[in-house]
Amino acid sequence: MAKSSFEYVKKFELDDTLLPNTWIVVRLDGKCFHKFADDHNFKKPNDLRALKLMNYAAFSVMRDFSDLLMGFGQSDEYSFVFKKDCNLYKRRAAKLLTTITSKFSTSYTYYWNKFLGDQQLLYPPSFDGRIVLYPNEDTLIDYMKWRQADVHINNLYNTTFWTLVQEGKLSPTQASFNCYVITLNKGHSFNFYILFQAEKRLCGTVSADKNEILFKEFNINYNNELEIFKRGTLLFRKNINIDESNKCSTVIVDVHDDMLKDSFWKDHKDLFTIKSKQHFIYNGPMTEIISAQLHGRKSVIPETT
Amino acid sequence: MAKSSFEYVKKFELDDTLLPNTWIVVRLDGKCFHKFADDHNFKKPNDLRALKLMNYAAFSVMRDFSDLLMGFGQSDEYSFVFKKDCNLYKRRAAKLLTTITSKFSTSYTYYWNKFLGDQQLLYPPSFDGRIVLYPNEDTLIDYMKWRQADVHINNLYNTTFWTLVQEGKLSPTQASFNCYVITLNKGHSFNFYILFQAEKRLCGTVSADKNEILFKEFNINYNNELEIFKRGTLLFRKNINIDESNKCSTVIVDVHDDMLKDSFWKDHKDLFTIKSKQHFIYNGPMTEIISAQLHGRKSVIPETT
Amino acid sequence: MAKSSFEYVKKFELDDTLLPNTWIVVRLDGKCFHKFADDHNFKKPNDLRALKLMNYAAFSVMRDFSDLLMGFGQSDEYSFVFKKDCNLYKRRAAKLLTTITSKFSTSYTYYWNKFLGDQQLLYPPSFDGRIVLYPNEDTLIDYMKWRQADVHINNLYNTTFWTLVQEGKLSPTQASFNCYVITLNKGHSFNFYILFQAEKRLCGTVSADKNEILFKEFNINYNNELEIFKRGTLLFRKNINIDESNKCSTVIVDVHDDMLKDSFWKDHKDLFTIKSKQHFIYNGPMTEIISAQLHGRKSVIPETT
Amino acid sequence: MAKSSFEYVKKFELDDTLLPNTWIVVRLDGKCFHKFADDHNFKKPNDLRALKLMNYAAFSVMRDFSDLLMGFGQSDEYSFVFKKDCNLYKRRAAKLLTTITSKFSTSYTYYWNKFLGDQQLLYPPSFDGRIVLYPNEDTLIDYMKWRQADVHINNLYNTTFWTLVQEGKLSPTQASFNCYVITLNKGHSFNFYILFQAEKRLCGTVSADKNEILFKEFNINYNNELEIFKRGTLLFRKNINIDESNKCSTVIVDVHDDMLKDSFWKDHKDLFTIKSKQHFIYNGPMTEIISAQLHGRKSVIPETT
Repeated sequence: MAKSSFEYVKKFELDDTLLPNTWIVVRLDGKCFHKFADDHNFKKPNDLRALKLMNYAAFSVMRDFSDLLMGFGQSDEYSFVFKKDCNLYKRRAAKLLTTITSKFSTSYTYYWNKFLGDQQLLYPPSFDGRIVLYPNEDTLIDYMKWRQADVHINNLYNTTFWTLVQEGKLSPTQASFNCYVITLNKGHSFNFYILFQAEKRLCGTVSADKNEILFKEFNINYNNELEIFKRGTLLFRKNINIDESNKCSTVIVDVHDDMLKDSFWKDHKDLFTIKSKQHFIYNGPMTEIISAQLHGRKSVIPETT
Repeated sequence: MAKSSFEYVKKFELDDTLLPNTWIVVRLDGKCFHKFADDHNFKKPNDLRALKLMNYAAFSVMRDFSDLLMGFGQSDEYSFVFKKDCNLYKRRAAKLLTTITSKFSTSYTYYWNKFLGDQQLLYPPSFDGRIVLYPNEDTLIDYMKWRQADVHINNLYNTTFWTLVQEGKLSPTQASFNCYVITLNKGHSFNFYILFQAEKRLCGTVSADKNEILFKEFNINYNNELEIFKRGTLLFRKNINIDESNKCSTVIVDVHDDMLKDSFWKDHKDLFTIKSKQHFIYNGPMTEIISAQLHGRKSVIPETT
Repeated sequence: MAKSSFEYVKKFELDDTLLPNTWIVVRLDGKCFHKFADDHNFKKPNDLRALKLMNYAAFSVMRDFSDLLMGFGQSDEYSFVFKKDCNLYKRRAAKLLTTITSKFSTSYTYYWNKFLGDQQLLYPPSFDGRIVLYPNEDTLIDYMKWRQADVHINNLYNTTFWTLVQEGKLSPTQASFNCYVITLNKGHSFNFYILFQAEKRLCGTVSADKNEILFKEFNINYNNELEIFKRGTLLFRKNINIDESNKCSTVIVDVHDDMLKDSFWKDHKDLFTIKSKQHFIYNGPMTEIISAQLHGRKSVIPETT
Repeated sequence: MAKSSFEYVKKFELDDTLLPNTWIVVRLDGKCFHKFADDHNFKKPNDLRALKLMNYAAFSVMRDFSDLLMGFGQSDEYSFVFKKDCNLYKRRAAKLLTTITSKFSTSYTYYWNKFLGDQQLLYPPSFDGRIVLYPNEDTLIDYMKWRQADVHINNLYNTTFWTLVQEGKLSPTQASFNCYVITLNKGHSFNFYILFQAEKRLCGTVSADKNEILFKEFNINYNNELEIFKRGTLLFRKNINIDESNKCSTVIVDVHDDMLKDSFWKDHKDLFTIKSKQHFIYNGPMTEIISAQLHGRKSVIPETT
């Protein structure tokens, strides 16, 4: 096609190729999701429907990009890990970063009704993304542990906080901690006392203490909380038996394994080394995500990439 | 909140601050939109509904980011220009790039029904994005001219091509040029002849010739084509009189001005220089986008950023 | 030539092309030059021979790179400014940065004896370098002003300090200010008093005060100090008459103009705009650097680039 | 010290921190060294004095930077490898790159007379540098092998070429291969024949063939060539017994080991893993470089870093 004399401005687009042979991680975060969660009446401290939507949007991304090795999500964030030898888009950073961000964002919007059908989506949400390189397995594994430790720390904190608040008869719409401290200064003395206690107890207390507070005072056993709340969700490819004939199919599975344990990484060592087919066998429960793949081959949702 | 011992992995996130005092341009492109357009029965060579959806999604972005000076779109691409002195997110490249990409992508999905209500959205679309710096007004203006010249070149080509095809009685599902050359090899001699002529005429012919082909052989006057098809859409802020009392309101307007003319840039010189309020007065037609802003102050769509 | 199977490691070399159409500045700084100056008995607060060596090394760089528009130096630092449209080494950052750094460093070493013949060079010195982009004339001019303002501030401070010290009979080997405050705590009461006064007077006092201290107490008129000390040295190309026939030759001149005055930039506006030959006429004194060029055409020092 | 209002221009200096936990390699190359070698009468195909000067300059760098693990040089190039966990200058790329480049360049100039005393240095030489990251041991080792394979390929080619040339009685000033082909076209039939043979034989021939040419026709056994010519020089730290009392001292040694053999890397595995002291014992010959360190503790050349 004809070229214009303005074409020279293309030269201002600079190369952003990423260092080869390193793990590429893309992490997305919901933008202003405190407000978004309030606007859409998400349950506190955890809304199972919203988490399932996050997971499904991530699954929609994983399905499109076969170079993605793992996805890990919690709350309003999701991390995606590309294979070390990934050469998609010649490893151009902006291209990798934006296609993941865009696909996740539109999937979150597109599948909203599937998970939050009762609640109208009031406006388009948005996510920001960043791209980080990890040069070796050790640092990548520590990255995964970092995000999962974060789920644990945040969830224990939030569960304790919201239990204290809710048992203290504070209305669930009195949402964030900061708001409380400010707004409650105006005379809600009992609530304020509860909150003050909550804050005092939470700041600097270690996990064991928080477990104890929950257990002793509110009769809540943190260990009984849902795995998805305590550990987030890990997505990766495993093989699954699809019928009696022992035929196998590779599917993306959504699990809540404990990645802080070194045994997890020992069991999944081949995740990093085997280039061809991973031979992990999945024996877990049939989830919505797995089921969508087994029955979904004729679905309208194409595997596009 | 407590920190884990894995926190050190944050150090692998490197700084990506953009050079100060330069124009930041983010350009988005639809991913696999040839297929997407076919899957969703977009009209060829231009689908007005689809273009309006693009514009509305871009408007949704502009509304959120007051640091955006202009947006310009055509076909499945959109460019956004940040003010030279923009300091949003401390000019971190990934942050700017992904929030724009994400908001545009979700808006495109969210507002789909508003413009293509008859056509079900079959799967989440996606867009890729890139970020480019222009160090001065001249190069930025040439960038804008480059994109608008591209609309012209592409549209003239496509209009000629599709006219030749459609007048030649080729079925509308025989979509892309490449497909034709392949599929028509199997006996569609008349169609093939038409296409061959089309190709021969189009390759290397200059705009004047194409205008002539359209006019002489198909009785189509290219000048009568819609401005939105020939010039794309420019979004920027102007003042508008909202009632008889001469009260003014600043709104994002969608226009199809000719940016290839230097007079446009003379008339809009203040766009680059005046920091406070631009005093451009809008006298054009009331569009859907402008109307949404004048009546939309109580709308459910908040100006969030 | 034959390629080895290890060639793939070249792919780890990433592109570092600089944004086009911006001013490229390379600034060099002497590494550990406090110690280097002491080791080589540089005079305090300014050693004219050492400054001349810096200038000659910079001249050696300017001569090699015709894309260099200006050089500006003071103390142990030198800045080099490339033309905005410079395309040397395709604007690869590391290549531009290191060739300038290397040539300056070796020239400093090579020409040592020419300027400090009495003082043996005891070990190879070294310089670090950085590369910075300025997108427009205003920011570039402010950069030049910043460096020249720095000469003034530092020199006024140092002259005042060393005058106080030297008039106070402190030995010249009691070198740096910090050392004094620490080492003199042990009983040198008179010196300590002088220093304490010096410190008290210098910290936070403005230039006018310092001028006054110098003038009133030590009978030194700062205005009589050498221009090279007060303003640093600017290198750029000018035309010079070389004989009676009015024949002109372009030479690199070393001047000490006041770049803080806007009149300087008005007079030299063409420096930025004229691509071909600059028509500045040089009327200043014949310096060592200019003379080296007029007679040096048969010299052993080739113009290599 | 007082700040000027121009200080804001510092914001244009962007962060260039390198990815943590990766091997940083700085590689220097002589600029226009074909001409430099001719100007300074370097012997062809290898000048032992010039190679020793390169090694000594590299040694001067290694001595200054304890974070350097290895240096490897050949012809007019030298590579320096920083420890994986190096945090010098906070891993800022330009700082690391330029200080290495500068120190090497000045050392080359400073020590010229020590190795090429008979030949005056006619002008300051220069070197360019680049910085490359290798994310793991395998790619770093392949980098080292790549450079050493390059020595072998180049040297075998050059030795064969120059032998053919010199035995063919071509004058030593008829220097480069390209020059020959052009200049000899004018009637030097015998020489041309020799050269034609040389070219025909060398292009595309493998190493074994070249060995054979050398051996059969010119009675030269390539295996008898000096190790420094065939393998280049590796610098790294080893322990050495300095007297009968078995006292050890760590010195930088210059060796010509075969790094293409995996056994080398097995023997030196600890080079990568042991953080504290490497316990390699050196048993090789006493070289100029080693000797300079054992006797040089009172030398004028300080270990400055």
